[in-house]
Amino acid sequence: MSYRVGIVGATGAVGQELIDLLYARNFPMESLTLLASSRSAGKTITRGDKSWTVELACPEAFDNLDIAIFSAGGSTSTDLCPEAAKRNCVAVDNSSAFRMDPNVPLVVPEINAEAVRGHQGIIANPNCSTAVALMGLWPLHELFGLKRFFASTYQAASGAGAAAMAELEDQVRSWVKGEPMKAEQFPHQLAFNLLPHVDKFFEDGYTKEEHKMLNESRKIMNLPELRASTTCVRVPVLRAHSIAINAEFERPVDVVKAREAISGFAGADLCDEPAENRYPMPIDFSGKEKCGVGRIRIDSALDNGLALWVVGDQLWKGAALNAVQIAEALVKLDAVAVSV
Amino acid sequence: MSYRVGIVGATGAVGQELIDLLYARNFPMESLTLLASSRSAGKTITRGDKSWTVELACPEAFDNLDIAIFSAGGSTSTDLCPEAAKRNCVAVDNSSAFRMDPNVPLVVPEINAEAVRGHQGIIANPNCSTAVALMGLWPLHELFGLKRFFASTYQAASGAGAAAMAELEDQVRSWVKGEPMKAEQFPHQLAFNLLPHVDKFFEDGYTKEEHKMLNESRKIMNLPELRASTTCVRVPVLRAHSIAINAEFERPVDVVKAREAISGFAGADLCDEPAENRYPMPIDFSGKEKCGVGRIRIDSALDNGLALWVVGDQLWKGAALNAVQIAEALVKLDAVAVSV
Repeated sequence: MSYRVGIVGATGAVGQELIDLLYARNFPMESLTLLASSRSAGKTITRGDKSWTVELACPEAFDNLDIAIFSAGGSTSTDLCPEAAKRNCVAVDNSSAFRMDPNVPLVVPEINAEAVRGHQGIIANPNCSTAVALMGLWPLHELFGLKRFFASTYQAASGAGAAAMAELEDQVRSWVKGEPMKAEQFPHQLAFNLLPHVDKFFEDGYTKEEHKMLNESRKIMNLPELRASTTCVRVPVLRAHSIAINAEFERPVDVVKAREAISGFAGADLCDEPAENRYPMPIDFSGKEKCGVGRIRIDSALDNGLALWVVGDQLWKGAALNAVQIAEALVKLDAVAVSV
Repeated sequence: MSYRVGIVGATGAVGQELIDLLYARNFPMESLTLLASSRSAGKTITRGDKSWTVELACPEAFDNLDIAIFSAGGSTSTDLCPEAAKRNCVAVDNSSAFRMDPNVPLVVPEINAEAVRGHQGIIANPNCSTAVALMGLWPLHELFGLKRFFASTYQAASGAGAAAMAELEDQVRSWVKGEPMKAEQFPHQLAFNLLPHVDKFFEDGYTKEEHKMLNESRKIMNLPELRASTTCVRVPVLRAHSIAINAEFERPVDVVKAREAISGFAGADLCDEPAENRYPMPIDFSGKEKCGVGRIRIDSALDNGLALWVVGDQLWKGAALNAVQIAEALVKLDAVAVSV
């Protein structure tokens, strides 16, 4: 079997990675259709000897597709994912629009691939920081039983899209020239700076990004009682997110067993030799499928606690790769057909 | 009264700030002597119409000084602070050499200025991340009773000295030119990267910097039972440190009261209007005496908990300013004389 695949938001940072990953991972494609808003429709995208004219993302565009991966923002997803589903095209949605919908599976394949079964035409791809954090937390949860975690993120510019990455690069170039920096993609300068502000603020003082990390972790791991408090911070890094975590467990913890669990987990790469100055860093985990987990130690402020540091490519495990893995799970579990 | 003041490590990043702060704050100086190792002795330092020849930091250099501020690394302090004290010159030491010595007061003047009384010739200046974190934690402790905290730091290049700041700038310039980056001051490239590694690693998996944050917080706040777990991370920022904190208290917390306490505290500047995109950032708190405190919210994973974000100039509150404030406290409390 091979499938007619579409990418909605094909010209964006994640869209571009999706094209490459679908080919690199030999996803069984009968065809690949690139879709985008009217602003980008008509553009040409090429890869080696392949070339596409980007088509307009409209309801009818899904008539002849089996799977569409959406990465074009929440309002496009809200409008068009149901249109795709209606037309028997499974929507794998990278936006936050449907993630907490009880009828929509929220899937990280290494954790809950089985949840794709019985989808109703839409499957949600998680928030990038959540996906990366869980590559460290899930194998530890399986061993020790996760109760609560504290996380501080160090999020790359890529999470805000291709224009945001370019803005960081431009700011650095301006700094070298001694010229003023332009800040349009972020509310403030990001070069040589930090913004404790990712996505919008809620009344409770947390941001939407911080809420996502709690709510999506609960749903993906099926831990409705999990507690978490996170601070999400944008840092002047290009494309990998890093997360410092303090995690409390139900049962006594052990660093050796924790390391073995990380080593044995499909989504993680143990990178934990501090004596050799080996720990996960954004420059080493950009363009890597697995997330790096290191700095694993007994937490000095928790009973049954571990502290750890997780780094993962935001554009890959935090977005495009996880979406392709969901599409692969649909194929493997023979669940591509929409059953409404 | 005015005093004969010396700076040991006068050519370093902190030393340079010390010169400026002593004049800017009108510290009562009869004279200012600049000292450094043999590598820098003989250099000329100028400020406006003032000029100094850097002298060799040796035991006899303290014969004619009343106060010497040390910022030349642990081994220089270990060797020379006792020599200064012996010669009736109070050593205010910025290194970690004496901080945990029970005979040495460890002082953040907004918290425990009185501790300078009865010094035995050496007073320790705290670790930079600790000093900055406590500008948020201390006023909240006074209100609610601090029990435990989790902190993740975002530490600027300045913490590793002037050469490290220059290295980050050089790396950025190399990147713009498309040339390879040199990394000599840090074990890895810092531009567009993060290093979860500040100071050396201990057997328990924590770094010395992380230990300092726990041990020094306990000593400064006189909270021997305090628990803390921190992850210290170097980020590509030039000179202000930022810290994400989750803090647990003995008594019920209240965000309005917490904000009032921060506003009323001499060491902090409340900067907490998320709806206006106002929160502390390194570029806004470099060259500021007070540390910025914002993102104050009820912690979603703690009972009686608050989450907050603190930013402070590493070279100032994290080092030079706090040391000058200690010297000012010595003057104010009439404690300059060494009573061994």
